[in-house]
Amino acid sequence: MNILVTNDDGFQSKGIKALIEIARGFGNVLVVAPDSARSAQSSALTVSMPITYNEILKEDNLRIISCSGTPADCVKLAFSRQLPDMDFEPDLVLSGINHGSNSSINIIYSGTMGAAIDAALYGKLSIGFSLCDHSLNADFSFAGEYFTEIIKNTLKNGLPYGVCLNVNAPVGKIKGVKYCRQSKGAWREEFLAYPTPYGKSCFWLTGDFINEEPHSADTDEWALNNGYISIQPVQTDMTDYGFLENLKK
Amino acid sequence: MNILVTNDDGFQSKGIKALIEIARGFGNVLVVAPDSARSAQSSALTVSMPITYNEILKEDNLRIISCSGTPADCVKLAFSRQLPDMDFEPDLVLSGINHGSNSSINIIYSGTMGAAIDAALYGKLSIGFSLCDHSLNADFSFAGEYFTEIIKNTLKNGLPYGVCLNVNAPVGKIKGVKYCRQSKGAWREEFLAYPTPYGKSCFWLTGDFINEEPHSADTDEWALNNGYISIQPVQTDMTDYGFLENLKK
Repeated sequence: MNILVTNDDGFQSKGIKALIEIARGFGNVLVVAPDSARSAQSSALTVSMPITYNEILKEDNLRIISCSGTPADCVKLAFSRQLPDMDFEPDLVLSGINHGSNSSINIIYSGTMGAAIDAALYGKLSIGFSLCDHSLNADFSFAGEYFTEIIKNTLKNGLPYGVCLNVNAPVGKIKGVKYCRQSKGAWREEFLAYPTPYGKSCFWLTGDFINEEPHSADTDEWALNNGYISIQPVQTDMTDYGFLENLKK
Repeated sequence: MNILVTNDDGFQSKGIKALIEIARGFGNVLVVAPDSARSAQSSALTVSMPITYNEILKEDNLRIISCSGTPADCVKLAFSRQLPDMDFEPDLVLSGINHGSNSSINIIYSGTMGAAIDAALYGKLSIGFSLCDHSLNADFSFAGEYFTEIIKNTLKNGLPYGVCLNVNAPVGKIKGVKYCRQSKGAWREEFLAYPTPYGKSCFWLTGDFINEEPHSADTDEWALNNGYISIQPVQTDMTDYGFLENLKK
């Protein structure tokens, strides 16, 4: 079995190393991941310039390639099979483990999920994994047990065409796993202003996440805040069907 | 009335100039747009460095600011009101007019729509506009008539919280306007390989769009291919509710 692994924190992050170890339990692993952090890159693609790569490691069952592009670029480059000596058709794509949550509205900004979504559009089993801890040295030791089981279940039961899973884990003791919908939420941003050498300010994005339905027990945010791993099935049709019917009238 | 205008092709593009003219018919206009092309930037945010800006124009009813960030960054910077002399609360946000289609699956890659979606998350009326012509010198002369009418209707009827419109126009004679769902589709990519000065190849993304339901007359692709402007209402909950019910069983 062939497993493509990618992420948005870069090929050297602790989270992808944990995911590579899990993936190796399932078969041959190809890593194509950004050469440094590409957080919040969403489904962005590099279209105005070419992308470059470096071969980091090539062993019998593990090959690691870093790429100058976005997470979605990495998936497309792997599927194109245009890299040298590339005879690898992925059966399964795993993205992460992200350092930080990709629950609720974060899914639309997430490079981790951008990669997972792109893989699903190639018709492949695809799962994005995240841990609600942004620190570089986050503790991923729980993941072997829980994420391995989620992968096994996905291989056994399959996913509809074009659908992937968004899996988020809370920090600390895990009570179990819940299938969830995406909680309604948004960021209320501000910027930290810094003086530039040229007199004007520059602005660094920061802000607070607002969960707009903290008491809805069927949401990913509720699961995470109550000690459960959340699993959201993700599709890419963004049409508001209810409002579309109103518009047609 | 205050109108924020942005895009992903940059503040100097022909498409945003056409949209600014339309917006000026409705009130005071603030443009915060990328300083150069940011195509296919999706909902990407700049989080690992600060963003900078330049004041391009400041007249009584029109102010133009260019920004080093992504389209979604531009929206967030405008809403933060942290730019100097900024006393502007947008009532309406217009993104585009994009040089190129953002129908079907293109919505997930589009910086134009990334900006429109972000504005909707601030609870504002928000519309993304695109023309199915990638050329720098595309003809936007149709837009004054049709897009002005779409804006008027949106102001009159409103949009649900968090919902924006994805408006695409075909090239050539326009037969009318249709409310549509997003057509199922995907890109089948390849990369053009070029030699680098260092012996390896680099790869430039290209590919073909596959419309997976060309005969479905309720889709945006069908509308565009048959001479109609498509209007898709867009929401941000990516949960696959049908499959979620299966998973829970």
